[in-house]
Amino acid sequence: MVKQERAVRTRESLVRAAAEVFAEEGYETASIATISKRAGVSTGGLHFHFGSKTALADAVVDRAAESLRVITVSRLAGANPLQSLVDSTHDLVALLARDAVVSAAFGLVAGNGARSAVGRERGWAVRRQWQRWVEAQFHDAAAEGLLAEGVSPQDAAAAVVAAIVGFEVLGVDRREWSSRSSLTRYWGLMLPQLVPVHRLGDVLAGGSGAPPASRSARAS
Amino acid sequence: MVKQERAVRTRESLVRAAAEVFAEEGYETASIATISKRAGVSTGGLHFHFGSKTALADAVVDRAAESLRVITVSRLAGANPLQSLVDSTHDLVALLARDAVVSAAFGLVAGNGARSAVGRERGWAVRRQWQRWVEAQFHDAAAEGLLAEGVSPQDAAAAVVAAIVGFEVLGVDRREWSSRSSLTRYWGLMLPQLVPVHRLGDVLAGGSGAPPASRSARAS
Repeated sequence: MVKQERAVRTRESLVRAAAEVFAEEGYETASIATISKRAGVSTGGLHFHFGSKTALADAVVDRAAESLRVITVSRLAGANPLQSLVDSTHDLVALLARDAVVSAAFGLVAGNGARSAVGRERGWAVRRQWQRWVEAQFHDAAAEGLLAEGVSPQDAAAAVVAAIVGFEVLGVDRREWSSRSSLTRYWGLMLPQLVPVHRLGDVLAGGSGAPPASRSARAS
Repeated sequence: MVKQERAVRTRESLVRAAAEVFAEEGYETASIATISKRAGVSTGGLHFHFGSKTALADAVVDRAAESLRVITVSRLAGANPLQSLVDSTHDLVALLARDAVVSAAFGLVAGNGARSAVGRERGWAVRRQWQRWVEAQFHDAAAEGLLAEGVSPQDAAAAVVAAIVGFEVLGVDRREWSSRSSLTRYWGLMLPQLVPVHRLGDVLAGGSGAPPASRSARAS
């Protein structure tokens, strides 16, 4: 049992180390040696837990997908789909700034030095998961009369997904981009066009304030 | 004179090769040897034209800044500031997909493997130039009564700048993101909230169709 716990902790630190090295050097350049050294694990130990760099990338993406599920699937009982969306964007941008694994998984598809097809394909899995969820929120919103007339759920989702990439990428160097207030101003601009006037009071640009954990607990 | 032309052409191919290698390997990893080999120039030749990798990054950014000026400063005589903005976003997204130098300069600030402070600072110069221009368009639009009541020029600029980063980053692997029709749908969604109803006919989401060259020629 103790041995099992230690194995879990070793895997955990290998995944975190891999995420950090992917983010710093790019997936292609990252070496097994650097990752195992960073994690304080022998390369033999790394190979015992993960057969290859691809397996590590898969583990990073799985962990990120799990974090993404926590902030998305979990809908506050009674929260409308657009409020859930706004809340999740706040959670995601905060997570990207704070969580090396989530940021590395999303970073597998972004700019320089990430030309590895294997790495990019893994990165797309997380980005697709996010995009589909955003689209689902807009479709649900339309069904609940929460989407203004003439707004296409798909176009709205594309606009939001694209903008969040911007907050993510620009926020790496310029924290003001990934700040809660930037995102609140963004939603303050977008919501009046997305939501019918008489429902505008139902969606708070700054988020409902419910932490993802409580949303998750209540939803389950 | 012939010698001078040859020198110009050599510099040109070094800048292009540097851009390609920065984009593929990241600025930090890119080596002088790889760049000179790609350009078909000896490393001695490279050092004659550019003293260092930093000098090459500066040249890439200067070339990109020049391309950016062509698609921005150049306002169609008679085009309103928002139409110029829409046109320029179409031009920029096309340029990013097609022009290795512009794409490399913007890519200096985007995701994995571009952790070099020197590279990122250079990249920010181009991104700032773009952001300032977008802001200026919205300020001009407000002055001309082309911005809907209650819309903050700065928030509108931030939303557009962020979204264009998304089209840029996601479009690297998924061309549908950087297609003209995606961007047209984006503007189709955004313009009704940004522009007062009675001026909506003055801004075409698909762009005015005037190529940057003609805008540039008429503006000068």
